[in-house]
Amino acid sequence: MNSRRDFLQKLTLSAITLPLLPGSLKPLNLPEENPEPYQGKVLRVAILGLGSYGTRVADAMQTCKRAKLVGAISGTPTKLKEWQTKYNIPAKNCYSYDNFDQIKNNKDIDAVYVITPNGLHRDQVIRVAKAGKHAICEKPMAINAQQGQQMIDACQAANVRLLVGYRMHFEPKTLEVIRMRQAGEFGKIKFFQGLSGFTIGDPKQWRLNKELAGGGAMMDIGIYSINGARYMVGEEPVWVTAQETKTDPVKFKEGVDETILFQMGFPSGAVASCLSTYSMNGLDKFYLNGEKGFAEMQPSTGYGPIKGQTHKGELNQPHITHQTVQMDEMAAIIFDNKKPEVPVDGQEGLRDLKIIDAIFLAAKTGKKVELKA
Amino acid sequence: MNSRRDFLQKLTLSAITLPLLPGSLKPLNLPEENPEPYQGKVLRVAILGLGSYGTRVADAMQTCKRAKLVGAISGTPTKLKEWQTKYNIPAKNCYSYDNFDQIKNNKDIDAVYVITPNGLHRDQVIRVAKAGKHAICEKPMAINAQQGQQMIDACQAANVRLLVGYRMHFEPKTLEVIRMRQAGEFGKIKFFQGLSGFTIGDPKQWRLNKELAGGGAMMDIGIYSINGARYMVGEEPVWVTAQETKTDPVKFKEGVDETILFQMGFPSGAVASCLSTYSMNGLDKFYLNGEKGFAEMQPSTGYGPIKGQTHKGELNQPHITHQTVQMDEMAAIIFDNKKPEVPVDGQEGLRDLKIIDAIFLAAKTGKKVELKA
Repeated sequence: MNSRRDFLQKLTLSAITLPLLPGSLKPLNLPEENPEPYQGKVLRVAILGLGSYGTRVADAMQTCKRAKLVGAISGTPTKLKEWQTKYNIPAKNCYSYDNFDQIKNNKDIDAVYVITPNGLHRDQVIRVAKAGKHAICEKPMAINAQQGQQMIDACQAANVRLLVGYRMHFEPKTLEVIRMRQAGEFGKIKFFQGLSGFTIGDPKQWRLNKELAGGGAMMDIGIYSINGARYMVGEEPVWVTAQETKTDPVKFKEGVDETILFQMGFPSGAVASCLSTYSMNGLDKFYLNGEKGFAEMQPSTGYGPIKGQTHKGELNQPHITHQTVQMDEMAAIIFDNKKPEVPVDGQEGLRDLKIIDAIFLAAKTGKKVELKA
Repeated sequence: MNSRRDFLQKLTLSAITLPLLPGSLKPLNLPEENPEPYQGKVLRVAILGLGSYGTRVADAMQTCKRAKLVGAISGTPTKLKEWQTKYNIPAKNCYSYDNFDQIKNNKDIDAVYVITPNGLHRDQVIRVAKAGKHAICEKPMAINAQQGQQMIDACQAANVRLLVGYRMHFEPKTLEVIRMRQAGEFGKIKFFQGLSGFTIGDPKQWRLNKELAGGGAMMDIGIYSINGARYMVGEEPVWVTAQETKTDPVKFKEGVDETILFQMGFPSGAVASCLSTYSMNGLDKFYLNGEKGFAEMQPSTGYGPIKGQTHKGELNQPHITHQTVQMDEMAAIIFDNKKPEVPVDGQEGLRDLKIIDAIFLAAKTGKKVELKA
């Protein structure tokens, strides 16, 4: 980072941003005027699944203060070799899918971040728990609520933490909207709209395989609108309705959803109208309507800078690499029992899965599905 | 208009706008470099219903070239007096609701524009038709499809035209988006989103009276999303689903809808997700998503300037008073049999009513309702 950008970022932070951030959220990886080296306990993480998102997390973790990438688990020995070099990971902290239960005996690893196809999460997280390590699991936590509950039970039995990779729960602009909502700045919330989608490519990828993905667009991208509706509205839905359409039955086979419109009702009377799709370009849009104001974000959940505005003007909180903040904050959650503004625990993951189960049922039966609040 | 604005408007028109407008749409009431006085036949119109929207139309008609306000029909004698003075209407062209059938004998009136509560449209339009005058009817055309069909039949039997007040069908930015869609500039259309609503005030107004309004928000404002979905997507829906919520049962009595989320499916596989509400602020938003691009408009249907952009940039067609252009174009439709880009005839009004009937049924039963394409 050159000095001008450095200066601008500091200026933004000190002059504008920090006063707006909730106390719990002070990002740990941002440049500070007089940075003091972090002296506390560091969460030593192994990543399980070295694909493109695993690599993104590994890269982001290079600037973490409280979390450190120290291990890797993969079925591909060449990938493990590559990561050893690239991320300076000792060979003794590398495992295969066959032998990673031995991580139990490795005192240099505290947690395993499972970043594999959705259909593998349940069994892998349960193995991590049984090895006595904290489990961090990419979202969706599993492919249905039953599996999610099994994971929660296993982690509880093993006395380890289970966290789900909800990076948006640490994103400053998102948190500012949540703060405004909690402060009543939007008044009574009336409506949420979430549009989540993109055009998926290669028909042979695991995301289009029912066993591995547990579905199609909904599991992968629609979940952002579900989770977003919950943290933007600040309530749990009590009903869902859904309409599924399929224009490409070759790419989207039985059980792999292409496009689902879904609606949710909340106890206050607020409603949400959402779209999940694998066949439309560039949909990453949230809109929150309240009696006194609004918020809109676009992109609302992408990796790059989130952009948004409210009735009070543009959201100008700084962009920080989501996964860097997430991992530092997760270290604080695990070691300091820090309570994040929006939960990232197993129960949070399970709520989304229950809603997804209900959406699939509503889409199939054409009927409204009631949910427990 | 001062000369600077005059200049800017001319500049905008000659340099930017006219090449983008479809041939059929050259607005008749815009300043021209060398305006030639209009020599042709003028549509002489009486307005039936002198309320706030009637007044808006009357004001807008003052700058029409091909249409002229010449008569008024009202149940309130003082209003008729007022209009005679304000709009220079001869007393002989003024009627009451009791005696306006006598308009049959008035050779100075060609058409009657019915701008009364929805529940009165059917009978009034049929009386206009029986008096041998062309009928222009504000939207919704009636309070259900059955009534709409009766109006079409009556006008056909009387050999008069029946037009519905779809002012957006003549709006330049709207027409530019339609032109782009027809030219394939958005590629295959995938998704339309329409948000239409506002917070309604006085609970005693006719818009919240089932008999007079035929419903609530859907008839009044939701119809914009229905009609907009049709002209933006360019297809007729083949199914609808709908979810109704009511948070204020005092203001919104039985049969008067407060908030309805509704979805539509089109033969191509495109889907629409819409919101109609009387209990949220400032919702007037269209979004069209295609394989190659998008359009978004906000406000999308308000009386003031429509604002919007596409993947190619901002829509910069000029704002022209909607009702002025509408009435000039309707004169051309009636006298020259001009075909507007998007129809404004009775069949067009009937299509919206059939969809509204289906939405109400879907909201009531919770079931998908199939429509004939």
